[in-house]
Amino acid sequence: MEQDSAVSWNFRGSEKVKESCTHSISRLVVEVMKNVIARDKIIHLGIGDPSSVPCFRTAFAAEDAIISALRSATFNGSSPTSGLPQARSSIAEYLSQDLPDKLSADDIYVTVGARQAIEVVLTVLARPGANILLPRPWYPLYEAFVAFTGLEARHFDLLPENGWQVDLDAVKNIADDNTVAMVIINPGNPCGNVFTHEHLKNIAETAEKLGILVMADESYGHLAYGSTPFTPMGVFGSVVPVITVGSLSKRWFVPGWRLGWIAISDPTSILQGSKIVESIKGNIAICSDPTTFTQGAVPQILENTAGEFYSKTASILREDAEICYDLIKQIPCIACPHKPDGSMFVMVKLHISQLENIKDDMEFCTMLAKEESVIVLPGFILGLKNWLRITYAQEPSTLKDGLGRMKAFCLRHARKMQG
Amino acid sequence: MEQDSAVSWNFRGSEKVKESCTHSISRLVVEVMKNVIARDKIIHLGIGDPSSVPCFRTAFAAEDAIISALRSATFNGSSPTSGLPQARSSIAEYLSQDLPDKLSADDIYVTVGARQAIEVVLTVLARPGANILLPRPWYPLYEAFVAFTGLEARHFDLLPENGWQVDLDAVKNIADDNTVAMVIINPGNPCGNVFTHEHLKNIAETAEKLGILVMADESYGHLAYGSTPFTPMGVFGSVVPVITVGSLSKRWFVPGWRLGWIAISDPTSILQGSKIVESIKGNIAICSDPTTFTQGAVPQILENTAGEFYSKTASILREDAEICYDLIKQIPCIACPHKPDGSMFVMVKLHISQLENIKDDMEFCTMLAKEESVIVLPGFILGLKNWLRITYAQEPSTLKDGLGRMKAFCLRHARKMQG
Repeated sequence: MEQDSAVSWNFRGSEKVKESCTHSISRLVVEVMKNVIARDKIIHLGIGDPSSVPCFRTAFAAEDAIISALRSATFNGSSPTSGLPQARSSIAEYLSQDLPDKLSADDIYVTVGARQAIEVVLTVLARPGANILLPRPWYPLYEAFVAFTGLEARHFDLLPENGWQVDLDAVKNIADDNTVAMVIINPGNPCGNVFTHEHLKNIAETAEKLGILVMADESYGHLAYGSTPFTPMGVFGSVVPVITVGSLSKRWFVPGWRLGWIAISDPTSILQGSKIVESIKGNIAICSDPTTFTQGAVPQILENTAGEFYSKTASILREDAEICYDLIKQIPCIACPHKPDGSMFVMVKLHISQLENIKDDMEFCTMLAKEESVIVLPGFILGLKNWLRITYAQEPSTLKDGLGRMKAFCLRHARKMQG
Repeated sequence: MEQDSAVSWNFRGSEKVKESCTHSISRLVVEVMKNVIARDKIIHLGIGDPSSVPCFRTAFAAEDAIISALRSATFNGSSPTSGLPQARSSIAEYLSQDLPDKLSADDIYVTVGARQAIEVVLTVLARPGANILLPRPWYPLYEAFVAFTGLEARHFDLLPENGWQVDLDAVKNIADDNTVAMVIINPGNPCGNVFTHEHLKNIAETAEKLGILVMADESYGHLAYGSTPFTPMGVFGSVVPVITVGSLSKRWFVPGWRLGWIAISDPTSILQGSKIVESIKGNIAICSDPTTFTQGAVPQILENTAGEFYSKTASILREDAEICYDLIKQIPCIACPHKPDGSMFVMVKLHISQLENIKDDMEFCTMLAKEESVIVLPGFILGLKNWLRITYAQEPSTLKDGLGRMKAFCLRHARKMQG
């Protein structure tokens, strides 16, 4: 071991990595969970992964499709870098059901979950000096990848008093000639909102005026169960070029399957002309591919999942959203500005001054974990300090239990009124 | 569509992506294959993916393990970012069988194939001004990621006249204080060689003197069937810190399963001290994860794959290597400097001046594809112009047929001797 002191080693950890990984929800949740004492009593309202909740077990047809693809022994090899043709074609058909301009297989790139799709699109958009418009509150992965690619992030607000709609005036104010794109997440993570057709049209027209493309994160596509139906951004592909990312993870409750996609809605071929499509193909060619047999199963998963599966799970999420919204009203020191009607999340404001000896959202979350074994996400990681993101995709009874404990916690820690 | 001409769009494809994707074997093979006319007669000696060759069908025990993990419905969710604990632990045990310093689960990071493992390690090593030593001939993925991360690539030769050993004098000459690591691939891709224990020891000692770590790509680990047994680089972890990348892809013939790993052999904790380990953890935390149910299956795959599976497939590869070496000797205009004894590849030199009207390796490959429906890889993509990489992992009869056609091609195109 003597060489340890004798040798001067040239390598050291990357500063860029260090910066980017401060934007990791999973790492933060691990930190919060360390505070839990009664681990058998834990109720997880922290991350959007209800795959272990029995009522959200995925469709058997989807499992069967994977097993049959695996057993065929025809999907053990590498796939073409843009994805298996049959997977691309069936995803195109699936998405086209809701689009005026139909997509072809060539408009689809299959990825390792929506996560890789996001990474690829941001990598492709990053050119020296370019900036991108991101929503606040945000999904931290965008901040991480933006830090990595060298894109400059500029933020526009989502307006809680306005159903978390995009502040389009802010978008116009922060954009300039080096702005290449704006990102929307619909249905919303972390806000649980669903954008109206009209609002999406306004977004498209604004982006078109600014000369930027819209990157639409529809990871929670179709998980809309309130009065606003889900409209894919691709509907406005003839107004402005749209790059949509999506995956099986959320609608099928299988984030561990790692199957996502990039879809290009660009009927006027603007993205072809600007070499964005070529660049996506190029980047995909050197990235890791999603599991081939899962790709091989995609056509059967999309065709064979019964409508009852979608309606049953949507109905539980609707019930969960109602429970969440109603119970939060009864909890002191927090407030919910907008009843969620999509995805799995709600953002609630923490009235920190009404709490005794709790200095911020992080402390709230660690103490809640310690005292009540309930995990929620502190808003600072989403760009909104002293807010919380609650994931309500749970068995309704568990959700009630979790929120009940949160109420007890807030009652216990509420600042006592004087006089 | 009028806005197309009216609007000036701000976005355009990435130059960096364009540069990096010139280093893609799969894209080049697609180009070569476009020349094939008789598609039903195709013989693929181009890429290292024999998963569709019946004699290399993966172990049933491995398929069973995946199906059982999937059916358990306990692996549909996201995994911890460094990998499922049971997968990490079983990979540590698997690798430790051949190591003096045993690995623990914490030394393993599970990745989306070896490809992501390579990407993560290079990303972590890239700091402004740093350079890395890469072998020539190379595996193009390294060139692609190095172009991407901003690392400077410096190349040392592998010496064909010396069994493709590393030119260690060259390594010493090109390294400086900004050199952070050297990469070796063992068993060799593209050269099909296996480094001796003694040579690996020399590599370790050289690296230690230079203050650099060794990144050992053991994607083809254990696929050594000649007189030199496979020695993992981790054996020398107490001499120099070693980061090993590996995967299920090659030994199990399942590149489509996308399950790889990073292993840290660093008994003196030098990589901990230099924050390299922290940086790997950080980067892994924002990357896409490998499929969770495949991770869940890893312990059973490693435990239940029968020894006969390994010996049967190694024996076919040995036979293939013999056939390849013997038949190449009978083909004019090409020469093989070293009989392969590992991986699935052999490098052969093209005596281009002996061929009529064929100007280089790329033209050789496209004409061979067109005239004989045989696919081999031109060496320029591997850094050796006018060489060829032949992948011999095939049914022996198919391999004989393919090499027979290559012989006919060379006989037909050999320059006629004058006089």
